[in-house]
Amino acid sequence: MKALGCHLILELYDCPARLLDDPDHVAETMLEAVEASGATVIQPFFHQFAPQGVSGVVIISESHFSVHTWPEYGYAALDVFTCGDVIDMDAAAESLRRGFEAGSMQKMMFSRGMLDLPPEMIHHKPESLEKAAGCRTDN
Amino acid sequence: MKALGCHLILELYDCPARLLDDPDHVAETMLEAVEASGATVIQPFFHQFAPQGVSGVVIISESHFSVHTWPEYGYAALDVFTCGDVIDMDAAAESLRRGFEAGSMQKMMFSRGMLDLPPEMIHHKPESLEKAAGCRTDN
Repeated sequence: MKALGCHLILELYDCPARLLDDPDHVAETMLEAVEASGATVIQPFFHQFAPQGVSGVVIISESHFSVHTWPEYGYAALDVFTCGDVIDMDAAAESLRRGFEAGSMQKMMFSRGMLDLPPEMIHHKPESLEKAAGCRTDN
Repeated sequence: MKALGCHLILELYDCPARLLDDPDHVAETMLEAVEASGATVIQPFFHQFAPQGVSGVVIISESHFSVHTWPEYGYAALDVFTCGDVIDMDAAAESLRRGFEAGSMQKMMFSRGMLDLPPEMIHHKPESLEKAAGCRTDN
């Protein structure tokens, strides 16, 4: 079985509230992480909530990065969804941890689109599919 | 422990390629699902890839809906990330399944932002936090 996508879920705790409530800082941190990962930005969007919190998404050529922050709890929910073989998930995670100055970070990684087909039947992006199988954590 | 967010992951298989490769249909289906769930749209964004495939995100007041499609495999990866107590996750999932005419759908639900605090310490959106605990699937 092969996976079409790789989905990294990051839970960032103990982040300074001032960083999580600053839409400019959130945007900068997200775009730095996209760049660190080697992904290509198509469209970024960020929104500040009242009384606090920021949501944002960066659509990339290889899927998306998203963020939702709860400054009052020092918590940020991050998702990195990718396809393709050029994305460095560890670099993205480390860049986000550093940018939000997280005291702790939990990581979960999922394979998305597990096709019940033999590999020779999957002709789209063969290299990326090979690497995405099992959602490698070593790249 | 209480959760700040609820994250529904949907894997849609055996969808007609013509629906997954039509950005207008993808956008319409996503916005119908947002409406069915009771969420409030802040900003939708959709992008068509060459030679095929659509990515899209709808930022909502309660977090986001995202979609990535692989028409060549009849597969769509959907995520519904919410906070708050007004979102009907089942209605969202059924609306998406119907809109993409999926032959099969896998659902996974996660609690995001599990705070290691007693309930009385969590004073933000108390009703939504109560309902989000365990990421209920019956609403």
